Amino acid sequence: MAKEKKLVQSITARDEDFAQWYTDVVREAKLCDYSGVKGCLNYLPNGYAIWENIQQDLDKRFKESGVENVYLPVLIPESLLQKEADHIEGFAPEAAWVTQGGSEPLQEKFCIRPTSETLFCDVWSKTVQSYRDLPKVWNQWCSVLRWEKTTRPFLRSREFLWQEGHTIHATYEEAEERTLMMRDIYYNFIQDDLAIPLITGRKTESEKFAGAQDTYTVEALMHDGQALQSGTSHFFGNSFPDAFNIKYADKNNELHSVYETSWGLSTRIIGAIIMVHGDDDGLVLPPRIAPVQTRVIPIAQHKEGVLDKAREILDALTAAGYKAKLDDSDKAPGWKFAEQEILGIPTRIEIGPKDIENGQVVVVRRDTREKIVVPIDEIATRLSEILETMQKEMFERAKAFRDERISSATTMEEMGRKFSEKPGFIKAMWCGGEACEDEIKAQVGGMTSRCIPDEQEHLSDTCVCCGKPAKHMVYWGRAY
Amino acid sequence: MAKEKKLVQSITARDEDFAQWYTDVVREAKLCDYSGVKGCLNYLPNGYAIWENIQQDLDKRFKESGVENVYLPVLIPESLLQKEADHIEGFAPEAAWVTQGGSEPLQEKFCIRPTSETLFCDVWSKTVQSYRDLPKVWNQWCSVLRWEKTTRPFLRSREFLWQEGHTIHATYEEAEERTLMMRDIYYNFIQDDLAIPLITGRKTESEKFAGAQDTYTVEALMHDGQALQSGTSHFFGNSFPDAFNIKYADKNNELHSVYETSWGLSTRIIGAIIMVHGDDDGLVLPPRIAPVQTRVIPIAQHKEGVLDKAREILDALTAAGYKAKLDDSDKAPGWKFAEQEILGIPTRIEIGPKDIENGQVVVVRRDTREKIVVPIDEIATRLSEILETMQKEMFERAKAFRDERISSATTMEEMGRKFSEKPGFIKAMWCGGEACEDEIKAQVGGMTSRCIPDEQEHLSDTCVCCGKPAKHMVYWGRAY
Repeated sequence: MAKEKKLVQSITARDEDFAQWYTDVVREAKLCDYSGVKGCLNYLPNGYAIWENIQQDLDKRFKESGVENVYLPVLIPESLLQKEADHIEGFAPEAAWVTQGGSEPLQEKFCIRPTSETLFCDVWSKTVQSYRDLPKVWNQWCSVLRWEKTTRPFLRSREFLWQEGHTIHATYEEAEERTLMMRDIYYNFIQDDLAIPLITGRKTESEKFAGAQDTYTVEALMHDGQALQSGTSHFFGNSFPDAFNIKYADKNNELHSVYETSWGLSTRIIGAIIMVHGDDDGLVLPPRIAPVQTRVIPIAQHKEGVLDKAREILDALTAAGYKAKLDDSDKAPGWKFAEQEILGIPTRIEIGPKDIENGQVVVVRRDTREKIVVPIDEIATRLSEILETMQKEMFERAKAFRDERISSATTMEEMGRKFSEKPGFIKAMWCGGEACEDEIKAQVGGMTSRCIPDEQEHLSDTCVCCGKPAKHMVYWGRAY
Repeated sequence: MAKEKKLVQSITARDEDFAQWYTDVVREAKLCDYSGVKGCLNYLPNGYAIWENIQQDLDKRFKESGVENVYLPVLIPESLLQKEADHIEGFAPEAAWVTQGGSEPLQEKFCIRPTSETLFCDVWSKTVQSYRDLPKVWNQWCSVLRWEKTTRPFLRSREFLWQEGHTIHATYEEAEERTLMMRDIYYNFIQDDLAIPLITGRKTESEKFAGAQDTYTVEALMHDGQALQSGTSHFFGNSFPDAFNIKYADKNNELHSVYETSWGLSTRIIGAIIMVHGDDDGLVLPPRIAPVQTRVIPIAQHKEGVLDKAREILDALTAAGYKAKLDDSDKAPGWKFAEQEILGIPTRIEIGPKDIENGQVVVVRRDTREKIVVPIDEIATRLSEILETMQKEMFERAKAFRDERISSATTMEEMGRKFSEKPGFIKAMWCGGEACEDEIKAQVGGMTSRCIPDEQEHLSDTCVCCGKPAKHMVYWGRAY
């Protein structure tokens, strides 16, 4: 058993050093690694396959809501980026600039897109004329680049993959409705498919996207008690479109401004999957998003009939629509178990000579290690129940953990004490002032306002920080 | 009928000015347009949806053959690009260079990937050690950038979308087999799904990819008689991997070189779809790749019951799995017909008061304008036959056109005469010398060797150009 021990020992215990545990899981599950360009990732097959499943599921939800996909250029002329003042201020410091094309220096430099609001507005400024041209509900799946100083796999890298949706509408109401609709799509997708419980609400003024009027967010809690912003949806009002002079003529031929939204979700979410569900033995993937749902592992595969039976089971599962694989390598079963666990494959199916005698297989759940004996001829029907139960219980477990990590506080002392005793979200009343946000951040372990939730509670009359009358209840947390 | 006339008149007749016709179709079908960065395209919803379908179909074929998808960085350090001599020579002149990150100049400049052989080899040089690590059969869907001087929508642009597959293998034979396997996948995909007939074979020395040992190609013939290289598959041998010092230990722990392949297909293929199938009224999309397969168009929709019935038909078609849309806008039916034709939607379903009385609809095929009367309650079953027949006939028609444009020649005079009388492919014998390729290009309307086909014919004993003994029969053509 030396080999599988070595495999597992390569992962630091989660409670011992969470950051090191995270790095170890990413490496051992072969999800991604750093490339030769500092801070840029290679998304390897195991990691990219998760992103492909996220794309597929989310894109289906987008299209059902009327979204059309496009692809706009990777380069943005400097003059275009400068058109909206808050925007250039927010993004110029971390842009990468192309100054040479072929052997010649360029007359105007181009940045690699850090986000594409300006490109979408540029297209619309040339093509939108009448109310008949509205709304535009566009999205693109692409990579963006931001010249970050410190980076961590999936959580913060210079180049990352995401989708960015951009829309324009004839009315304020329609744009606001779209902003919330996309927030809800993220919320449902992440809870249903990734089994990650969320809190949601509006961002405060200081945490909003550069140039946005309102930013809505969905926020998840990682196993170390830190928060991860997992998807955002922005309502821009007219500021961006007006800067680009996008106007439409109504039925009476009168010109009006349009209302804009944008919304995005990135490969950061893979970091959330790891940090919400992973354990000391590696990754644990929710069945609905797992690229491989089960791995068939033969025991004593040199014995007659074992490999044949294992292949038969694989074929039956594949025919029934499961994403199933067979590990018929020459490694020992213990090693194969450890590897399947590190990779987070939701179930394994053990089949050996004794199982064949008894006409059964043993299904082992990755999350609980529960062993479920199933008659061989029922495996294709029973496995879907097992996977659905696992999906449901993974969400419930994560939610119980998260709920247990939500406290409330009415004084700074209480806030600090509770956060150090039990890191997580803290609910507290807030006056609406940025100075209090700064004060809380400085005094309480770097906590920032995560959101002003839709569902408000009245915890006290006054701001937890300054004691002035409170305007909102806010979820606070230390964020990745 | 003024409006629909205007719509159609916006497209130049194909036989009058093919280049202008092409530009008009791209614009009027709203497939793509130029962005603010010279030579870079905006892929608009109608064009990008075609690419999404291409991706989906081709990716399925890839995965069935064992391909895994990854994503490697958009940036390549200059030092990495320089590792293989032929490669840097081929790509450096058209690379775009990033020299500034944030506010600081970079110590080493990075180019935006023009292709990613160097990045894939870099990953493998760090991770491949043993025969157990082989083969690697990886692919990525991404954009690449080449600083071209002249550009045309889809056919040649600075940034374009493609997939690039890269693989390494323990043996020469396995790598060669993979090279041909991917060529065959392109061949079958383009013929089956895009209804475009192909010729295929090896490239001559001068037409090969920079650094490749063999390049296989699939070549299509456009309606103007010019050829379009539609997909290529390269066999590299050891040169690239050796330059990156990728070695594997076999079972006896002896070190060996690996054998590499790469293969790609780009958004150029959308240009081929347009130029093979399009007509004077616009785009004609093969049903299997069309984002919308049918558009339901009500006649006299203000009359009671018409819109209801049209919606009923739409619902039945959607429920049956068709990609169907309804045009219930306030435009006149003639305008709607013209628009559906410009967009290349394979069929329209006309439904008016008289049709309802007779319990029927009229299906109109985009390619032939054939009108097919179908009982309303049979439309969901009958439409698939109509679409399949259309797909088959589009291929047969394109093949008949292409076959009619294949000539053979045994003298330069004959070659020149036949190409000017009937532009297309010309089969002719060749000595194997680059000088003769140059001579043919100079003398016969810019014709280049398109490929040395697998199926050789013996047309004569001597090279069409120099009269020395012939080595191969070659397909010649003027290429986009």
